[in-house]
Amino acid sequence: MADLKIFQIIATDKNSRARIGKLQLAHGTVTTPVFMPIATQGTVKMMSCDDLENLGAEIILANAYHLHLRPSEHLIERLGGLHSFMGWQKPILTDSGGFQVFSLSTLREVNDEGVKFRSHHDGTERFLKPEDSIRIQEALGSDIAMSFDDVVPYPCTYERAKLAAERSLLWAERCKKIHKRKDQLLFGIAHGSIYADLRLENTLRLINLDFHGYAIGGLSVGEPKVAMFELVKLSTEILPREKPRYLMGVGTPADIARAVALGVDMFDCVLPTRLGRTGTAFTSIGKVNLRHAKYADDSSPLDPNCNCLTCQRYSRAYLRHLFKSGEATGPRLLTWHNLHFYLRLMEQLRDAIERGDLTDLVSELMLLFPDSPDD
Amino acid sequence: MADLKIFQIIATDKNSRARIGKLQLAHGTVTTPVFMPIATQGTVKMMSCDDLENLGAEIILANAYHLHLRPSEHLIERLGGLHSFMGWQKPILTDSGGFQVFSLSTLREVNDEGVKFRSHHDGTERFLKPEDSIRIQEALGSDIAMSFDDVVPYPCTYERAKLAAERSLLWAERCKKIHKRKDQLLFGIAHGSIYADLRLENTLRLINLDFHGYAIGGLSVGEPKVAMFELVKLSTEILPREKPRYLMGVGTPADIARAVALGVDMFDCVLPTRLGRTGTAFTSIGKVNLRHAKYADDSSPLDPNCNCLTCQRYSRAYLRHLFKSGEATGPRLLTWHNLHFYLRLMEQLRDAIERGDLTDLVSELMLLFPDSPDD
Repeated sequence: MADLKIFQIIATDKNSRARIGKLQLAHGTVTTPVFMPIATQGTVKMMSCDDLENLGAEIILANAYHLHLRPSEHLIERLGGLHSFMGWQKPILTDSGGFQVFSLSTLREVNDEGVKFRSHHDGTERFLKPEDSIRIQEALGSDIAMSFDDVVPYPCTYERAKLAAERSLLWAERCKKIHKRKDQLLFGIAHGSIYADLRLENTLRLINLDFHGYAIGGLSVGEPKVAMFELVKLSTEILPREKPRYLMGVGTPADIARAVALGVDMFDCVLPTRLGRTGTAFTSIGKVNLRHAKYADDSSPLDPNCNCLTCQRYSRAYLRHLFKSGEATGPRLLTWHNLHFYLRLMEQLRDAIERGDLTDLVSELMLLFPDSPDD
Repeated sequence: MADLKIFQIIATDKNSRARIGKLQLAHGTVTTPVFMPIATQGTVKMMSCDDLENLGAEIILANAYHLHLRPSEHLIERLGGLHSFMGWQKPILTDSGGFQVFSLSTLREVNDEGVKFRSHHDGTERFLKPEDSIRIQEALGSDIAMSFDDVVPYPCTYERAKLAAERSLLWAERCKKIHKRKDQLLFGIAHGSIYADLRLENTLRLINLDFHGYAIGGLSVGEPKVAMFELVKLSTEILPREKPRYLMGVGTPADIARAVALGVDMFDCVLPTRLGRTGTAFTSIGKVNLRHAKYADDSSPLDPNCNCLTCQRYSRAYLRHLFKSGEATGPRLLTWHNLHFYLRLMEQLRDAIERGDLTDLVSELMLLFPDSPDD
């Protein structure tokens, strides 16, 4: 693919750095800013592909680490690749596995060659190199592959953050070198923990390697929000305007809106699906936790201003009953609503960019969704 | 409702006692023979009301016992009744609670007055009389209420079976006496365990009480199939031709077909939903257990002759992966397929009755679904 055609900016906001773009991928065009529902193990939890199509999802995220361990990229490749395996014919982005090795495995040992870890399924010892991650993602056949990175926790010393950022850069270079699939984009991931100088240098050197797009990695791991947004701002100031920018693992509706205003184009987050499964809904009047007793005989819909299937048909009292009764229909109906909310949020953000009043919407969302410990 | 209009037989089979009927209920007309998906706690497990409508379910079954304990019939009544609470506007049959007190509660003590038991949720001591069951079912507002019965296990001594059958008859009479709702039918449940003389006498005396319809109860609790079908045959021979007949808790596709041939009109069973949740599908080539390793890279659909959403889009390999990965999408897609299979089975049985070749279909289904220990 010629780079010029991959990403086109079709509108920008006068009062912020926000932009609307069209991202051309092998399985279709994605309009940014975009939210990618998470299909870690090859399915968005509680949802089928028909559901995702009905909700209007344009691209989903799957995990190379999980699919490598089970059922394996070899089996998926034999069955025609991940799109064919899942029955999903729209774009897929695969995460490289760096974050999952960091967050899920035990006995992790990292050196410049790669990562030794134990599978979180069966404890077997594994070794994953940047080259393996690309080989896996090429076998899966996702539309966008991510470079393999060394993710550090928060808090993290300057020295460790520096070492990990340099290693991630070295690995990104090796990923770029081995990546061959012409129908798959490759994004580089910038690191540097919360240290502005590290992140600045790391991002600049990553840009020099010339990827199809850039991710801001290693954030949303527990650092203060104010630090995160400072670093996002710093990053989008230096990332090339003409390439897509992806803020990994972020966030609440307010976080996403703020990052969009700073010029971020792509997002993924477990919040709508995870909180949906545990009884919390994102609504036009803020978060609603259905487990609260006050909803026991509340005959009103989950969100009075929502036209999703769940809100059109069921009351808070009924949804609460489903959760109290351990019925999976509850998590399903709330996952449906929350994904609908997030996908409509992205529409609203795009509309606000076009109208030129994004900053009003950002303020509104920050009041509606203040930071909370369960995000 | 005038009894003449409630149930109309519109076709009969020349070679068996099977018939096609129209059952007029407050929330719509049901074509029999009919299968009722089970919505024990006010939802068919893994399914929403939209799903059930899309699958073509005409009537579902909810449980007075479960809904009494949680969230309580009072709350449901305040919210407009069970149809409104669930968001389901088609017919609902409620089971009376007799079977659930028998199968779920502990410390059950039965006397002619009613049943003392402990809630299976919190161990609190409760007492349920026939009058309570009718009051609960009237509050729920189902289209069909069932009489409260004393269910005995298999095997069961003649004396105990006789006592329970007489008590169930006494209770049915008390249910009939107290039942007031004009928009709700009341069915009596016949008992007698596997003893033909008890069942004959009990059924005849129940018929004398004149219910809107009759259920054959206390079967499918572990007795040999040959005994069950003998008793079904005996029952349908004496039950009034012009009233609907309901065989409770039955069964496999072959069981249902055999009972239809004997003149049964209504069925409910946990098999399609329960087996669906654990990875077993009913298909046109017999049962398929997706947990078997041989399906790991089977790219064919679950059922090559099925046009349901699951079979049109997903492979056995993918569905197996979902089950192996503990993803609820797997149970959901298999529940969808199994309910589709059961609802299409009823269509096929009705078509066969109209064509006059039901006995061929029964033989075919008996070969395809031989009795197995997990039914």
